Amino acid sequence: MKKVEVITSILNANDLVAQENQGLLRNHHILGVNLMASPGAGKTSLILQTAKALAGRLRIGVIEGDLASCIDADRVASADIPVIQINTGGECHLDALTVQKAIKALPLPELDILFIENVGNLICPVEFQLGEKIRVVIASVPEGDDKPYKYPGIFTAVDVVILNKMDLTPYVDFSLDAMRQGVRTLNQRAKMFELSCRSGEGIAAWTEWLESQVHAEKK
Amino acid sequence: MKKVEVITSILNANDLVAQENQGLLRNHHILGVNLMASPGAGKTSLILQTAKALAGRLRIGVIEGDLASCIDADRVASADIPVIQINTGGECHLDALTVQKAIKALPLPELDILFIENVGNLICPVEFQLGEKIRVVIASVPEGDDKPYKYPGIFTAVDVVILNKMDLTPYVDFSLDAMRQGVRTLNQRAKMFELSCRSGEGIAAWTEWLESQVHAEKK
Repeated sequence: MKKVEVITSILNANDLVAQENQGLLRNHHILGVNLMASPGAGKTSLILQTAKALAGRLRIGVIEGDLASCIDADRVASADIPVIQINTGGECHLDALTVQKAIKALPLPELDILFIENVGNLICPVEFQLGEKIRVVIASVPEGDDKPYKYPGIFTAVDVVILNKMDLTPYVDFSLDAMRQGVRTLNQRAKMFELSCRSGEGIAAWTEWLESQVHAEKK
Repeated sequence: MKKVEVITSILNANDLVAQENQGLLRNHHILGVNLMASPGAGKTSLILQTAKALAGRLRIGVIEGDLASCIDADRVASADIPVIQINTGGECHLDALTVQKAIKALPLPELDILFIENVGNLICPVEFQLGEKIRVVIASVPEGDDKPYKYPGIFTAVDVVILNKMDLTPYVDFSLDAMRQGVRTLNQRAKMFELSCRSGEGIAAWTEWLESQVHAEKK
């Protein structure tokens, strides 16, 4: 009688593909950044501002995830940044396999950073590793200061919390202290950046930190 | 030999429970409203403003859906409105069964309108009927004017589109024409209301229309 071999899969299929993606990016010394946020929090604007700030020093590529449309990819492409648009149809998050196809379509030897802009959603994307090194959530001031308490999963899981649209603080009810405390209650290790993609305020601190991460990746 | 009876289920389990919920509300002449939106678009604020505007004329009850916390239910309860909080844990939308338990816990004979505030998410909630009569999506100005194109599923499915935070228009890049056109491209029949829960601007048009719907329900 033949012995039946049982292989226990510790990782699910998505995580295995995510590991392959991580290997692909590592081989090319590319820093992978998974950008997650509510709809309209400023994911594409952050990519564009970051590319502008790092122009001539670091080369950026982008994967855009949306249910439909290529509005974001068009914005990125018009800034001369290599970009692949993924339309998920109804899916509320990106997955590693779809991202792998997009990674392979990008000019990897020419890139230092790959931004993967996830579908606008504070819940589902966090369950799916894509092969990124750094996970970022962008919160924005008009969404309110209670978001960490309401969406603890994502605020717990990320390496970086970016608070965007700081220029709108005078016009909305928002307590910066409450926001900071909400993040810190869930996540002591996350880096926090407070900025405005519209005014440019605070962008430099973020891009300097990001640049240091790219250099660490190349060592 | 016994004849095998085959019953084809056209509706899925959720839809069947949603029909029960609809019956429950109809029996009590309650108008059920499913409120959907991105995180922080102003769902709870709209409920509070609507309750204030209709005070003394119509009686409101609320079901609050969140991943975690009872921040919203506390806000609603402090305005003396009957409210049940549902914490979905990780689930990115409400479902009819959970909502049924909440409906049964509310003082139905004392209500004219039931607001069901869904989890903050522009994607998943639209797939799940809850027993509502009216489906509303709230978009907000700082989220940008491209949301209909990016989240066509929800903008196509709703009866009402509310554009909130109109008071922030001077401080952000937002084209009201582009927003209106995006909605109309997908959905000709939806009612549109442009308002600000913060300033109160435009609330009356919405509450007058809502009142007319309640009276139609009681006929």
